[in-house]
Amino acid sequence: MSAAMLRELAKGNDEHVKSFSGSIKFSDFPKQDAVIILTCMDPRSNIIDTWNLPFGPAILRNAGGRATPDALRSMQVLASIMANGQSTLGAVAVIHHTDCGLVNFGNDFIHERMKMNAPEHLHKQIDGMDHGGFTDVEASIKEDMAIIKADSFLPKGLEVLGFIHDSFTGKTTEVV
Amino acid sequence: MSAAMLRELAKGNDEHVKSFSGSIKFSDFPKQDAVIILTCMDPRSNIIDTWNLPFGPAILRNAGGRATPDALRSMQVLASIMANGQSTLGAVAVIHHTDCGLVNFGNDFIHERMKMNAPEHLHKQIDGMDHGGFTDVEASIKEDMAIIKADSFLPKGLEVLGFIHDSFTGKTTEVV
Repeated sequence: MSAAMLRELAKGNDEHVKSFSGSIKFSDFPKQDAVIILTCMDPRSNIIDTWNLPFGPAILRNAGGRATPDALRSMQVLASIMANGQSTLGAVAVIHHTDCGLVNFGNDFIHERMKMNAPEHLHKQIDGMDHGGFTDVEASIKEDMAIIKADSFLPKGLEVLGFIHDSFTGKTTEVV
Repeated sequence: MSAAMLRELAKGNDEHVKSFSGSIKFSDFPKQDAVIILTCMDPRSNIIDTWNLPFGPAILRNAGGRATPDALRSMQVLASIMANGQSTLGAVAVIHHTDCGLVNFGNDFIHERMKMNAPEHLHKQIDGMDHGGFTDVEASIKEDMAIIKADSFLPKGLEVLGFIHDSFTGKTTEVV
C-alpha cells in the first residue's frame, strides 16, 4: 500500500463525520484514575474489538506491545495530566498476542533485512539495536510487566496486569 | 480505574470470542507493502472508527502520536518482516488531534507533577526528559513527518502523510 491508498482510506472519514455526535473536552474527562492498555500494532490486535471496550481506556500500540521507554513516557504523561493532575494512572494491562511478527521474526532476521537497505557504515549500529523480538509470549508479558512495575517515575500504587491474546480464537487469558 | 476495573473490561472478551470468525496467520498477510497509522493514545483518537477503516493497516499509538524512537523501531520492524521480508513499508500517516493532553499540558506541567511523587534524587533526571509536549498541532505533525522521512533505517521510497484530527467535529484534514 502507498500514500494514494492511505488517502483512499482517509475518505472513510466523510461518513464518520456525518454521524459523529461530538466528543468531550480533555478537561471534562471524569475525575478518576485512568487505565492504559498496551498492545501490538498488528491489525489482529485491536483490543477495542477484542474486549468490546466502551469509550474510556487509553490505548498504546507498538511493535509487539512492548514496555519500551516510549510506552513508559506515555504512561508517565497520563499519570500526570488526568483531571488537571488531581487524578493519576491506576492500572495498566500488557497484552501480547500469539503468532506475533516479533515471534515469527526475531531481532536477527530484522537486522539482516535492514542491512540489505542501509548503507554499510550503519550496519554496526543496526547490530546494536533491540527491535523487541521475543520467543515466548508469556515470558515477554511478564518481562514487560516487571519493567512497568520497576519504573521509578510511575505512581507507586500502579497495578499491572498481563494477558495473552490468542490471535486465532480471539480469546484473552490473564497471566498469573 | 483499577486492576479490578480492567478485569471487568476484560470480560467483554467472552462475547467477542463467541462471534469470532477466526483470523489469518501472519504468514498469510497479503504480499504487499504495509501502511502504518501513528496516532494518540487518547480514547478520542481511535482512527479505526474515525476513518471507518477496514482490517489491514498497522496502528501505532502513544502519547501525542509522536514519532519517537520507539515509533521508528516499530516502523523498521514492519518494513523488515512483511511477506517474509519480500515486501516492506510503503506509507505512514501521522495524525495528531486538537485538544490533545500534550497541548493542554506541556513538558513543564508534567515534570512538576512527576516531581511531586518521585524522590528528590530523580528530579534532575525528570527535568532532562522530553515527554512530547507541543503547542501547535500542525507544527508537531510536520516535525514528526520530517523525523520519519529522515530516518536512515526506513525504506528510501517511504511516503509520509500527515493529518490533523479535530476532536470535536471528528474531521481529519491532510496537512500539506
